Amino acid sequence: MAPTKKVGILGATGTVGQRFILLLSEHPIFTIHALGASSRSAGKAYKDAVRWKQSRPIPDNVAQLVVKSCEAELFKDCDVVFSGLDADVAGDIEMAMLKQDIAVFSNAKNYRRDPTVPLIVPTVNADHFDLIPHQRQLNNLKKGFLITNANCSTTGLVVPLKALQDAFGPMSHIIVNTQQAISGAGYPGVPSLDILDNVVPHIGGEEEKIEWEVGKIIGDISEDKKSFVLLPNTIVSATCTRVPVLDGHLESVSVKFANGSPSVEQVYQVLEQYSSEAEKLGCHSAPQKPIVVTYDADRPQPRLDRENLKGQAVTVGRVRPCPVLDIKFVLLIHNTVLGAAGSSVLNAEIAVAKGLI
Amino acid sequence: MAPTKKVGILGATGTVGQRFILLLSEHPIFTIHALGASSRSAGKAYKDAVRWKQSRPIPDNVAQLVVKSCEAELFKDCDVVFSGLDADVAGDIEMAMLKQDIAVFSNAKNYRRDPTVPLIVPTVNADHFDLIPHQRQLNNLKKGFLITNANCSTTGLVVPLKALQDAFGPMSHIIVNTQQAISGAGYPGVPSLDILDNVVPHIGGEEEKIEWEVGKIIGDISEDKKSFVLLPNTIVSATCTRVPVLDGHLESVSVKFANGSPSVEQVYQVLEQYSSEAEKLGCHSAPQKPIVVTYDADRPQPRLDRENLKGQAVTVGRVRPCPVLDIKFVLLIHNTVLGAAGSSVLNAEIAVAKGLI
Amino acid sequence: MAPTKKVGILGATGTVGQRFILLLSEHPIFTIHALGASSRSAGKAYKDAVRWKQSRPIPDNVAQLVVKSCEAELFKDCDVVFSGLDADVAGDIEMAMLKQDIAVFSNAKNYRRDPTVPLIVPTVNADHFDLIPHQRQLNNLKKGFLITNANCSTTGLVVPLKALQDAFGPMSHIIVNTQQAISGAGYPGVPSLDILDNVVPHIGGEEEKIEWEVGKIIGDISEDKKSFVLLPNTIVSATCTRVPVLDGHLESVSVKFANGSPSVEQVYQVLEQYSSEAEKLGCHSAPQKPIVVTYDADRPQPRLDRENLKGQAVTVGRVRPCPVLDIKFVLLIHNTVLGAAGSSVLNAEIAVAKGLI
Amino acid sequence: MAPTKKVGILGATGTVGQRFILLLSEHPIFTIHALGASSRSAGKAYKDAVRWKQSRPIPDNVAQLVVKSCEAELFKDCDVVFSGLDADVAGDIEMAMLKQDIAVFSNAKNYRRDPTVPLIVPTVNADHFDLIPHQRQLNNLKKGFLITNANCSTTGLVVPLKALQDAFGPMSHIIVNTQQAISGAGYPGVPSLDILDNVVPHIGGEEEKIEWEVGKIIGDISEDKKSFVLLPNTIVSATCTRVPVLDGHLESVSVKFANGSPSVEQVYQVLEQYSSEAEKLGCHSAPQKPIVVTYDADRPQPRLDRENLKGQAVTVGRVRPCPVLDIKFVLLIHNTVLGAAGSSVLNAEIAVAKGLI
Repeated sequence: MAPTKKVGILGATGTVGQRFILLLSEHPIFTIHALGASSRSAGKAYKDAVRWKQSRPIPDNVAQLVVKSCEAELFKDCDVVFSGLDADVAGDIEMAMLKQDIAVFSNAKNYRRDPTVPLIVPTVNADHFDLIPHQRQLNNLKKGFLITNANCSTTGLVVPLKALQDAFGPMSHIIVNTQQAISGAGYPGVPSLDILDNVVPHIGGEEEKIEWEVGKIIGDISEDKKSFVLLPNTIVSATCTRVPVLDGHLESVSVKFANGSPSVEQVYQVLEQYSSEAEKLGCHSAPQKPIVVTYDADRPQPRLDRENLKGQAVTVGRVRPCPVLDIKFVLLIHNTVLGAAGSSVLNAEIAVAKGLI
Repeated sequence: MAPTKKVGILGATGTVGQRFILLLSEHPIFTIHALGASSRSAGKAYKDAVRWKQSRPIPDNVAQLVVKSCEAELFKDCDVVFSGLDADVAGDIEMAMLKQDIAVFSNAKNYRRDPTVPLIVPTVNADHFDLIPHQRQLNNLKKGFLITNANCSTTGLVVPLKALQDAFGPMSHIIVNTQQAISGAGYPGVPSLDILDNVVPHIGGEEEKIEWEVGKIIGDISEDKKSFVLLPNTIVSATCTRVPVLDGHLESVSVKFANGSPSVEQVYQVLEQYSSEAEKLGCHSAPQKPIVVTYDADRPQPRLDRENLKGQAVTVGRVRPCPVLDIKFVLLIHNTVLGAAGSSVLNAEIAVAKGLI
Repeated sequence: MAPTKKVGILGATGTVGQRFILLLSEHPIFTIHALGASSRSAGKAYKDAVRWKQSRPIPDNVAQLVVKSCEAELFKDCDVVFSGLDADVAGDIEMAMLKQDIAVFSNAKNYRRDPTVPLIVPTVNADHFDLIPHQRQLNNLKKGFLITNANCSTTGLVVPLKALQDAFGPMSHIIVNTQQAISGAGYPGVPSLDILDNVVPHIGGEEEKIEWEVGKIIGDISEDKKSFVLLPNTIVSATCTRVPVLDGHLESVSVKFANGSPSVEQVYQVLEQYSSEAEKLGCHSAPQKPIVVTYDADRPQPRLDRENLKGQAVTVGRVRPCPVLDIKFVLLIHNTVLGAAGSSVLNAEIAVAKGLI
Repeated sequence: MAPTKKVGILGATGTVGQRFILLLSEHPIFTIHALGASSRSAGKAYKDAVRWKQSRPIPDNVAQLVVKSCEAELFKDCDVVFSGLDADVAGDIEMAMLKQDIAVFSNAKNYRRDPTVPLIVPTVNADHFDLIPHQRQLNNLKKGFLITNANCSTTGLVVPLKALQDAFGPMSHIIVNTQQAISGAGYPGVPSLDILDNVVPHIGGEEEKIEWEVGKIIGDISEDKKSFVLLPNTIVSATCTRVPVLDGHLESVSVKFANGSPSVEQVYQVLEQYSSEAEKLGCHSAPQKPIVVTYDADRPQPRLDRENLKGQAVTVGRVRPCPVLDIKFVLLIHNTVLGAAGSSVLNAEIAVAKGLI
C-alpha cells in the first residue's frame, strides 16, 4: 500500500472543518497532520478550541492536536491542505498555501470563477484536473495546485444535470428552487428565532452562485487543457430558501432540452445508469454510484435520504413531465458531506489516483 | 343595520371548521346558528366534541352549542352554510344543502371543476358571482346557491397573478414551487415523525389542483353569464412540498408574459396598486388591500407575515427578473385564513353586499 | 381621564424592547416618548435600527421615532423609563436614570438583590411598592424610583406559589423543572443548530436566580417599610432547560407544605379564587384573574395557552399528589409578556394607581 | 463459533420493530428468520408492508421476507422471539409464543408487573434471569421463557440509580422530570400540529410506569430465586412531557439517600466506574461501559449524545447538590435503542451467554 499523505485542515473548528475531521480521522490514505484555525484558537488543544456540534464524538487521535494559526509556513510539511475557511479570509490564506507548493482543496467561493482554477464536483467533472499542469506552470509550482469545490446547492444540481446532458445533449433552460438546511450557514449561523416555525426565502449570494457555477462545472475544458469553456447556451434561474432542517438540501428542478425532451422513463434510466470516473478509479470515498434513484412518490426527503451512500450520492426522485419546460424532478444532497467536505476529500483521492499528489 | 344572517358550519370540529368559528363568533352580519359534524360528534356540546387546537379559546357563545349531524333538514333555517367538510363526504352533503335552497360556501374540491359552480377567490374574481342566477335557474332554487373556494395554494397564487394579468396582459407560462404548512393537512394530519427536521416533497393531488384551478379563477365569465371561459393559453407547472411550519404557505413563482416582460419596478407598482371589489363593497373581512408588498430581501416569511391584514392579504416580495421566464417573486398566504375559511366568509359578505343573500 | 405619562424605552431594539413597543403603542395612560438603544442605533429611525421579529408589524407611531443613546440627560422629560437592557450595561444606565429622578422599571438582574429595590411581580407582591418612600429618601429623590421585575421563570413560579402560601401557610421545599422558550435568550440568541431536534439542559445563571428570587418576592416587607424579609425556611431547587419553542416557559413544580398537605381539590379551589391587587386597582393590563386553571390532562401547553388573558396570566394544570413532596403541578408563563415587558408595564400602572407616578 | 439462533420479530413493521431489524440484520449470533405483523401486512414482502422511517435503508436480507401473522404456530422454529407489539395485542400473542416453548423478549407493559416475569434492563439487573428455571417449571417449559424490558424512560433512570444504590445504599426519594422524544409514541404517533413549537406535559400512563418499575428493577430477587423483592422504602415521583425531538429522552433527576448524601465528586466517580454483567459476559451489543459521564455544563443533549456507544449507554451529566433532596443530575437515553429494541437484543445475548437459549 502506498505511503499515506499528511493533510492539514484549515478552518478546523468550523462546521465544515468538523466534518473534514470525521471524514479523515480513519482514512486509508490521508493522515490528519495539522489543524489550522483563527488566532483565537491557535495554541489550544483541538478539543478545547472547538465547539463540537457533531453527533459522533471528536476522534481520539484529533482531540489533543494543538491548533495552529493558518500561516503557510506552519503547513509546509503537509502534502494536502483542505480548507473550510470562510470566504472573508480564504482568499489570502489559500493563495499563501498554494505558493508553499501544497495541494489545496478549497470550499470557499473565492477562486471558483478564476479561469485557471478547476471547480470540481468529484462525480461530475474530474476531467477538469487536466488543467493542473497548466496551473502549475503559471505559478511555478512542482507539486502544489489549487482546486475548489462548488457551492453545496450547485453540487447537488450538477450531478443529475451532467447525467442528462451526457445522454440527451445540452439543456437550454433550468429553473431550480432550493430548500436548504441550517448547517449550510455554519455555526452559530441561523438564529433559532429566525427559523423555528418558519422558512426564510433568501440566502445571500446563493442564487447567483448556482446560476453561474453550473456553466463552468458541466462545461468543457479546452483541447489544450489551458482554459475552461463555459456552457454558452444554458440559462439557469434559481430561488433559494432556508428551512428548519439540520442537514440536507432539497431542490426542485425543471429543465428544457435544446434538442427535444426525453421521456420520463428515459430520464430514470439515464439517472440509474450514470457513473463517474471517481468510482472507476476505485477512490475510497466514491459512492457506489453517483445517483440514488427513488421511485416513491414522496421521496427524496432530507431526514430519510441524506445518508444514502454515506452522504456522497445525490438522491433523485419525482421525475415527471413539466408542462412549462420539459422534465421536472426533485433531488437531495447532503450539504456538509458531498456538498462540502466530502467533495474535497473525494477530489483529493482522485488527485492521488491520477498521480497529481 | 341589516338583520344578521343565521349561519351553519359543516365540519365544525375540523381544522377549517375551528377557524370558521373564530372568524364568525363576533361577526357583524353573521350569527353562528348551527354546527354540523360527523355522527360521532352529533348530540354533544361543541366543547366536548372538538379537539380544539387554536391558540385562542373556544368562544363562549359556541362552546355549549349542540353539534348536529350534517343532514340538510337540520340546517334549513340557516341563511348560509359554510362547509369545511372533507372531500370524501362534502359532495353529497353540500348538494343536499343546496337543494334545501341554502347558500352554500364550500372549501372542498368536489365542485370546483363543475361548469355551473363559481370557483371564487374573493379578492380576485367576485364577478364570477354573476353566474348565480343561471345556477339557480338550473337547480330551480330561489335563494340557495353553491360557491367553492380555491385550494389554499392556488388562492395565494392567483391574487398577484390577477394583478399582473390585469396590467400586463396574459401570461403564457407559470412555474410555482410551494412550501406548505402542516395545518393544511388538517388534524391529526401530518405525523410529527414525518416532518420534524424534514421536508416532504409531495402533497397528493395538490399540483394538479393548482395547475387546473388558476385557469378558471383568472379566466373569464361568458357574456351571457352562463359559463366560464378558462384561460386557453396559460400553462402552469407546480411542485408542492410540506415543511415544518404551522401556518402559512410560501410560494416561489416565475412567470412569462405573452406580450413581453414588464420591469421589476412596474411589477412592484402594479402589486401595490391592486385593489379588488371586496374592499370597494365595504365588506367587513376584506383586507385594506389584497396584496401587502414587502421590499426586504428576506421576506415574506411565514411566521412574520402570515398575520398581515388579519391573514386576508397575500404578501409578495423578492420581485426580480427571471433569467428563464420573465419575472420571479415569492408570495405568502395564510392557508387557513385567506386560504380556506377566510375566503368563504369574505365570499359570503360579498354575496350579501350584492344582494344574493 | 388623567393626563398621559411620557415613557421612554431603553434597549428598544431588543427582544424585550420590541415587546414593550407592542404593549405601549396604544396604551391609555402611557405614551411612547423616547427610545434608547446602543450608540450603533442612535440617530436612526426606529424602523431602520431594529431587526423586528414580532408577528405584528412595527406600530406606525413608533416606526419613525429617532433612537437615542441611553444617556439619562436625554430621557429627563420622561415620567417613566422601561428598561429592557442587558445586564452588562443595565446597572450604570438605570442608576443614572434613577438619579435623574425618573421612575425606572427594569427587566435586568442587576438590582434584584439590592435590599432597597423592590423585586415585584405585579400579580403577587404589589405591596412591596411600600418601600418606595424609603428608597426615595435614601437617594434624595422626589418622584423617581427603581423597581425590577423578576426573572421570567421565577415570575411564572411565584404566582401559584403566592396563592398556595396565602391559603395553606409556608412551603418548606419546592422543586421546579423548567422548559424554556428560545425567545428568552433574545436575538440572535440560541443558534438553530443547538436547538432543532434537541433540548439544552442548561441556561447560565437561571437556576440560581429562581432559587434566590422566590424568597424575596413571596417574602414580607418589614413593618417600618424599610426592608424586605426574605422567606427563611423555604428551600427551592431548580433545573432549567431550553426547548425548541418560540414563546412560553413550561414549569413542572413539586411543593411540600410546612403545615401539612392540602388536598388536590383544595389546591384547585385556591388557584381558581386567587386574585391580586392589580385587578382590584383596575389596572389596564391586569388580567381578569392572575391564574387560568386548566383541568385537561395534557395542558397547559406553550402554543395553546401562552396567549391566555393576553399573556398576563399564568396557566396552571395537572395538580396531583406528589409521592415525594406533597403536591405537584404544571404551569405556563408567556416569558416575554408577563415574564418580562408585561410585568413592567403592569407594575407601572400599579404605581400610577397608587399615586407614585 | 456457536451456531446462530433463529429469531422472529413481532410487530416488525412498527417503530420498535424497524429498530429490531436494524440491530439484528448483521448480528453475529442471531439471524432474522421470521417477521410478524398484523393480518393487514401478512403475506406481503416486508418492504411492501412497512412504512420505513429509519435513516438507514431496509437491509437487503430483510426487504423480501414475507411477513406472517403473529400466530405462535408460525414461529415455532424460532429460538427467540423479539416482540415490539403494542400493549393491546401483546398480552395474548406473547403468552401463546411462550406456550410454544419459545424464548420471548417483550417490549410491552403487559407482563412487567407479573411476579413470575423478570423485568430486565440489561446493564442493571441481569441477575434477575435467575428466576427463569422457576418460571419454566411453573409453565411446564423446556427452553421457552418470557422476559420484558422496562419502559424507555424507566430504563434510562435505573442505570445511574443502580450505580448509586450499589455504592451509597438505598435512596429514599427520587423526583424525575422527563422530556421525551416523539419516536417513543410510534408511528403515526404524535401529530405534528401537537408538537411543533410546543411541549405536551402528559404521556398517558408513563408516570405510573416509572414510579412502579424502578422498585422491581433495582430491587432484589429472593434467595430461592422464585420471587422478586421490590424496594420497600424508595419513593419515586415522575412528571413526563413530550418535546419536539426525534430520538432521545432527557431526564432531570433529584435523589435523596437513606444513609446521608455522597459528594458530587463521589457520585461522578461511581458513575464513571459502574460496570455491568453484560460487558463482562462479552455480549456483542453491550456498551463498553453502561454510563457515559459528561462534564460539560450543557450536556447531555439528545441530538449530540443519543448515539453515544451506539445508543446502548446512558449519558449522565450536570451532577450537583440538590438543595431539597441530596443530589441532582441530568441523563439521556436513546429511547428506541437502549430504551426498547436494544435492551431486548442485549437481554437475549445475555441469555445466550448464560446458557438459557
